[in-house]
Amino acid sequence: WPDRLMISPCCRYVSKAAAKTQMEFEYDGPSMKTEVPGPRSKELTKQLGEIQNVGAINFFCNYEESRGNYLVDVDGNRMLDVYTQISSIPIGYNHPSLIKVMSAFVNRPALGIMPPENFPEKLAESLLSVAPSGMSRVQTMACGSCSNENAYKAMFIWYRVSTHTDPGCPDFSILSFMGGFHGRTMGCLATTHSKAIHKLDVPSFDWPIAPFPKLKYPLEEFTRENAQEEARCLEEVEDLIVQWRQKGRPVAGIVIEPIQAEGGDNHATPDFFKKLRNIAHKHGSAFHVDEVQTGGGATGKFWAHEHWGMDDPADIVSFSKKMLTGGFYHKDELQADKAYRIFNTWMGDPSKNLFLAEVLNVIRRENLLEEVTRSGKTLLQGLYQLQDQYPNLLSSARGQGTFCAIDIRDDATRNSILLKARDKGVLLGGCGDRSIRFRPALVFKEYHVHMFLNVFSDVLAEHN
Amino acid sequence: WPDRLMISPCCRYVSKAAAKTQMEFEYDGPSMKTEVPGPRSKELTKQLGEIQNVGAINFFCNYEESRGNYLVDVDGNRMLDVYTQISSIPIGYNHPSLIKVMSAFVNRPALGIMPPENFPEKLAESLLSVAPSGMSRVQTMACGSCSNENAYKAMFIWYRVSTHTDPGCPDFSILSFMGGFHGRTMGCLATTHSKAIHKLDVPSFDWPIAPFPKLKYPLEEFTRENAQEEARCLEEVEDLIVQWRQKGRPVAGIVIEPIQAEGGDNHATPDFFKKLRNIAHKHGSAFHVDEVQTGGGATGKFWAHEHWGMDDPADIVSFSKKMLTGGFYHKDELQADKAYRIFNTWMGDPSKNLFLAEVLNVIRRENLLEEVTRSGKTLLQGLYQLQDQYPNLLSSARGQGTFCAIDIRDDATRNSILLKARDKGVLLGGCGDRSIRFRPALVFKEYHVHMFLNVFSDVLAEHN
Repeated sequence: WPDRLMISPCCRYVSKAAAKTQMEFEYDGPSMKTEVPGPRSKELTKQLGEIQNVGAINFFCNYEESRGNYLVDVDGNRMLDVYTQISSIPIGYNHPSLIKVMSAFVNRPALGIMPPENFPEKLAESLLSVAPSGMSRVQTMACGSCSNENAYKAMFIWYRVSTHTDPGCPDFSILSFMGGFHGRTMGCLATTHSKAIHKLDVPSFDWPIAPFPKLKYPLEEFTRENAQEEARCLEEVEDLIVQWRQKGRPVAGIVIEPIQAEGGDNHATPDFFKKLRNIAHKHGSAFHVDEVQTGGGATGKFWAHEHWGMDDPADIVSFSKKMLTGGFYHKDELQADKAYRIFNTWMGDPSKNLFLAEVLNVIRRENLLEEVTRSGKTLLQGLYQLQDQYPNLLSSARGQGTFCAIDIRDDATRNSILLKARDKGVLLGGCGDRSIRFRPALVFKEYHVHMFLNVFSDVLAEHN
Repeated sequence: WPDRLMISPCCRYVSKAAAKTQMEFEYDGPSMKTEVPGPRSKELTKQLGEIQNVGAINFFCNYEESRGNYLVDVDGNRMLDVYTQISSIPIGYNHPSLIKVMSAFVNRPALGIMPPENFPEKLAESLLSVAPSGMSRVQTMACGSCSNENAYKAMFIWYRVSTHTDPGCPDFSILSFMGGFHGRTMGCLATTHSKAIHKLDVPSFDWPIAPFPKLKYPLEEFTRENAQEEARCLEEVEDLIVQWRQKGRPVAGIVIEPIQAEGGDNHATPDFFKKLRNIAHKHGSAFHVDEVQTGGGATGKFWAHEHWGMDDPADIVSFSKKMLTGGFYHKDELQADKAYRIFNTWMGDPSKNLFLAEVLNVIRRENLLEEVTRSGKTLLQGLYQLQDQYPNLLSSARGQGTFCAIDIRDDATRNSILLKARDKGVLLGGCGDRSIRFRPALVFKEYHVHMFLNVFSDVLAEHN
């Protein structure tokens, strides 16, 4: 058993009460040694700059030394991570339960033709154990974009059969929403409308784009105005469906995020989603809920669409990020009729299912959804207080679970706050034009919230 | 260190002379216990049928027990593998060198924004150490389709700048070839033309499709006719480029496989590719060589395009499969000008780079490209002999390295041969309408070739 295989010293797992686990395992606070990016990060950025565009690189990380909610960079700076790799680390860094799961990673199979023996069992243990209501079928894919691309294809294939259209490459369309983000491959990109830079110079399809409700927060204080805005958007959706049918490009499917994430953490009410789902049904279009960013527990329920309280919330639900594998759940009738229609060489990666099964065990064993709900309440309450305290700086605090956001006065101030917070050891991400989005892991406890709020409060005081 | 982490007994690595390694490690021949699929495979297929379409499933595998060139199924059948997960297992199953590489797999980073410390070093050690001529930049992606989608985007972005077109979503196009296969997401699919089933019911772009030369084999016996056919295709390429420019959909890039694989193992001569590359240059289009299936050593050179003998073979080379990670190399000028234009959350998976570095070490240490050349010659010679022996059954044996193929009388006979060979413990794959493609791993030695030819010869005798 060679040295390089040894568990690194960061993984001393002290087995005490469940509540203790997290604390024993991780650090007791941020610790900053240099400015960020520090000298080592800068040097590596220069090296990588010879190979790739490095314009998006924040700094380089030491993943071996990172633990729980703390990301350690290559200059030894330890930061409380409230961004978690664009919202994709579910239970913190180097969780002991994950370190244990190391088995046959070395033979990556062509899953669609020669799956390993434990494949049905592992799918049942992992993805199917958290299947959305009304769905018992799931298809894995390598990433979020491939998941949505193949979900769209599944809708097109289903729509062709259900409308008795002649076979061919028909001019079907997908209706999406302004501000939506569904990935960057060419089918997905035609439905992505969060930032112009994503779409520039790439050919696209002539597909309808509906307005997403622009609501006022907190939602419960503006129910009447918000209901009017949602009604306006739903009316527009129906108009577009009719227009595109008349154009000869009928809407095979509607795709929407339960909370528009990349587009600025835009929420809508359960009533809006219920009515939208009914409109899809009425016009014979499939209803695709994209939970790539919202899925996996951060809203306090495993899927954000569970907040709508529907038995039949969707025809397709896609996922990736915190689920560790991409893929999509779908209703039985959306399964392609023939083999090789939804297909590629790898069809995901079974090693990710092993990790996911363990992630789900931890979520259940440590009641992480309850923890998220508790932490999320404390976080949102804290944001409301800060918003009252700094009305010229902050507005529209909003969220479900720890999937929260707040708007900042302007883009420049937002970016300055992100950098200042990082210098004090708190890692945050932006979204939309001038929002900060909070995307901690599911092990982000109330005491982490307090730690964050203290730093955030200090940073805000400097900007007032 | 729990039990499940122990190296399985299949991995007794006896360190002797390099030539011995392979033999000590693997089995000494096929061993069949049941028909294939056996009872356990059938049972699991039924189980998975409750979750997914299982129309493409051949049988279920025991990857722990598989070794070297032998795939073991869940019913204990041990087969010599000449298909290797649709050509994607580079150095055989459970190679001891890969088993050694197990490190921090549990924190999957957002590579584009927070890469690990060793990322530039590992890129240099792995992908850059085999960069195609004239290219020093590489972008990793999760799979083959994402690699091509992003390569197309890179070409569109470059083309917009190089043609001074106004920003927007312009009607640029990609020229592809009949019979080509470049993936199944929507941009890729618009350039894929190997089988109708791939494209059915999915909207597409109006992009030009050129004929790929239909050559006679062996190429060296039909040089004059083949040269005429290639000239015809090149003329058509230029006509299409002009037509599409006049239509207002100028050709930003040309995409082609060095050997059309999925489309039937169709070859063309170095002269064809040289002239095609010049046509691209003349018309200001980027030249994209898709090496997803051909790359990684199977043709006897690391990249199939090296057989063309050019210093400047391409502007973009995409890869996946045997490279373990998807991605694309590109010339400096094809790097997007801004961050976040070629981007997604994961941007590949750094754990795959670790494996790839080790795969490349093994390829060099064990001189596998020379071995492939030697095995490939023996294989092709054997196919020629069988083709002489069974002229009504076999035709058009062709290949580079072990990347070989042969045509069978008709589709039904082809499929019967594939199944009969499997029953005798040899795993093969089809391609095109009636071809068999050979896609062994790089550790497929001359004695494996003889073993295969003996079984194949027996199977053919039953079909004559």
